[in-house]
Amino acid sequence: MANDEVILLDFWPSMFGMRLRVALAEKEVKYEYKEEDLWNKSPLLLQMNPVHKKVLVLIHNGKSICESLIGVEYIDEVWKDKAPLLPCDPYERAQARFWADYIDKKMYGLGKKIWLTKGEKQEAIKKDFIECLKVLEGALGDKPYFGFVDISLIGYYCWFYTYETYGNFSIEAECPKFVAWAKRCMQRDSVAKSLPDQYKVLKKKFGIE
Amino acid sequence: MANDEVILLDFWPSMFGMRLRVALAEKEVKYEYKEEDLWNKSPLLLQMNPVHKKVLVLIHNGKSICESLIGVEYIDEVWKDKAPLLPCDPYERAQARFWADYIDKKMYGLGKKIWLTKGEKQEAIKKDFIECLKVLEGALGDKPYFGFVDISLIGYYCWFYTYETYGNFSIEAECPKFVAWAKRCMQRDSVAKSLPDQYKVLKKKFGIE
Repeated sequence: MANDEVILLDFWPSMFGMRLRVALAEKEVKYEYKEEDLWNKSPLLLQMNPVHKKVLVLIHNGKSICESLIGVEYIDEVWKDKAPLLPCDPYERAQARFWADYIDKKMYGLGKKIWLTKGEKQEAIKKDFIECLKVLEGALGDKPYFGFVDISLIGYYCWFYTYETYGNFSIEAECPKFVAWAKRCMQRDSVAKSLPDQYKVLKKKFGIE
Repeated sequence: MANDEVILLDFWPSMFGMRLRVALAEKEVKYEYKEEDLWNKSPLLLQMNPVHKKVLVLIHNGKSICESLIGVEYIDEVWKDKAPLLPCDPYERAQARFWADYIDKKMYGLGKKIWLTKGEKQEAIKKDFIECLKVLEGALGDKPYFGFVDISLIGYYCWFYTYETYGNFSIEAECPKFVAWAKRCMQRDSVAKSLPDQYKVLKKKFGIE
């Protein structure tokens, strides 16, 4: 598939985009990265994701694949000979999909609410967020990595400094095992080169120095 | 897999449960159906879905698979020699998953709000609901069936009479192509025997005669 044309319409602080960047890096697929302006979306984006009109979109030989987890599975199926992402066993695949779905249902909404709320409401959200990380710590158990779920989850780590700054708390103090996992993932080349610095996420997005 | 033990912890009006019932019927897998009381969940349910504590749960040889779409993919992967549900081509698979995800993100919430709201708010919800069905009609195009997406979507048809009664509107008048598709699906044995009558859904759930 040397002549494949792969384009990623992305937004650099997006934890969903990071999933596709890591998956493509794992598979060593060359692609063109196109940064989207969320407030002035490109005609290509609107054409390629007419239903949701959202970043991110993976375009492979002119065909679009939307929604990040669907994109990761697509990448795994198309470039199947290198660095398998999902396990082979149907039960383990179902487990991996369950945790990726759990992350999608919980993490984004809770994370966003940390910087959108204050006072008592924020305290309750922080508690739920930590509870969510602890559930994931439980799922990780004694393993160094989750496997497929690593790709679904690691992008959130770039946002931790933002959550901590707005929420005035230390995630590492509450969930050291989780942060140790994230640091292990960050040592992997495919992850390190696909994720922005967590200080940059806070600085650029919120104009805080 | 003649000695497989398959149990479904389900709730009969659940459109999510219907997906697994249809998938198991398509694969001709024998299973034990256990009706759950949502207000008094069984110890087996709480043990098998400790994270979400929700119906429905597929239990295969003592191992639980939660979340309906994950369950349908699991069934397709385990009983792979009979009645394939997902297409083989990675792009078509991604498209099927995209529409199933679209249904999960849109249909349940809008449907529920039809019977939870009134007045102007309900009118706006009805409009969104019809818009959603029209998007799906567009995705169906001239095909008689979607394929994999049929299983993800058909359970909602049992709720149409409930939506129509509460919303005082005719879905068939607005989306004849959609309803024609649903009626075609209902003629299929695996669907007909897995779905409850739509009048029963309204009567039993809301005590309306």
